Amino acid sequence: MKVGLGTGSTAAFAVERLGNLLKEGKLADIVAVPTSVRTFEQATELGIPLATLDEVPHLDVAIDGADEVDPNLDVVKGRGGALLREKMVEMASDKFVCIVDDTKMVSGLGGSKLAMPVEITQFCWKYNLERLAALPEVQGCEAVRRMDGDKPYVTDNGNYIVDLYFKNEPIKDANAAAAAILALEGIVDHGLFMNMVDVCIVAGGNGVEVIPRPSPKK
Amino acid sequence: MKVGLGTGSTAAFAVERLGNLLKEGKLADIVAVPTSVRTFEQATELGIPLATLDEVPHLDVAIDGADEVDPNLDVVKGRGGALLREKMVEMASDKFVCIVDDTKMVSGLGGSKLAMPVEITQFCWKYNLERLAALPEVQGCEAVRRMDGDKPYVTDNGNYIVDLYFKNEPIKDANAAAAAILALEGIVDHGLFMNMVDVCIVAGGNGVEVIPRPSPKK
Repeated sequence: MKVGLGTGSTAAFAVERLGNLLKEGKLADIVAVPTSVRTFEQATELGIPLATLDEVPHLDVAIDGADEVDPNLDVVKGRGGALLREKMVEMASDKFVCIVDDTKMVSGLGGSKLAMPVEITQFCWKYNLERLAALPEVQGCEAVRRMDGDKPYVTDNGNYIVDLYFKNEPIKDANAAAAAILALEGIVDHGLFMNMVDVCIVAGGNGVEVIPRPSPKK
Repeated sequence: MKVGLGTGSTAAFAVERLGNLLKEGKLADIVAVPTSVRTFEQATELGIPLATLDEVPHLDVAIDGADEVDPNLDVVKGRGGALLREKMVEMASDKFVCIVDDTKMVSGLGGSKLAMPVEITQFCWKYNLERLAALPEVQGCEAVRRMDGDKPYVTDNGNYIVDLYFKNEPIKDANAAAAAILALEGIVDHGLFMNMVDVCIVAGGNGVEVIPRPSPKK
């Protein structure tokens, strides 16, 4: 089986479990594609055979966390800064399994009031930050360039991140917002993962709930 | 007036002319936004006051060449590698004046059989090159990563260029191709400049022809 490995504190548990099952001989014939340098390093230590999408362009399943999950199982991801690699790997997978705890569930994306990241080229970043903030589809958001101490945060791809904060209300139409954001020149990708998750596994006070996608993927 | 300055052998004549008109006092109150380091250097030498989109986000007019022009005045640009900056500046302009010689006129985009460039992130470039080549909207094209000697060509934004060659026939529906290309994760932008040119000035054996856009911009 070909498996995409997510990034972040939740995904790290899944990577660890996969490594242990391999060691115990309960799993075999796995090749995995990591979504970040951090996951690459963790998986290497665990002895999980690894590849890239250049070598394995089609995956059976990807397992990753999310920053927000809405009732359609559309999600916000990428607060860790790996959004482009995560989206590439998860789009290449037949099945995308999202694992979260129940604090990540929102009625509408942006609803946690935490960052929805957008990856943009460094060239004319201020111009693009202002264009993002002015899009009617994300009306009311606050747009902030992500910093790393006193320097701008730079992604693995050499780009900046602009974080959008929806302080007043969630995004009204996240599909429309996703399309409008991507249509701007100089925008590389964004943290809205629409129409991608097949099943969400949610840990809460009462145990673990498995939520299948309510409607088929388009 | 706020003017966008293109890049390339044809645009260089327009930049030179602008500089001379300023020196002769026939133009004044100009601020220009260059689309490349090369144009920045030429304009600086000519004494043209310069800014970036970060400072001047809205331009009155942009003047630039093109690699191909079709009967709708949709164009292919970016063989020089500056496609993203050119598209950002020209999208920020009320009016985009395209200047070419008549060898650039084609019946359909891609029809010159020369490169239609796509700017992609370095991460998993081979995966994305193969996904580009497999898009039904660009069926029949040959996809080649651009080289600079024996190393991959790297854009001002730190990305690679994949050149698409349409050896058999032009792109059937360039709007559909543009949308399909941009929808792939890891694609930053492409050289199809659709619905952007307002007027095309074409130099040929019989002099100069001014071709207005045949239908209004959408």
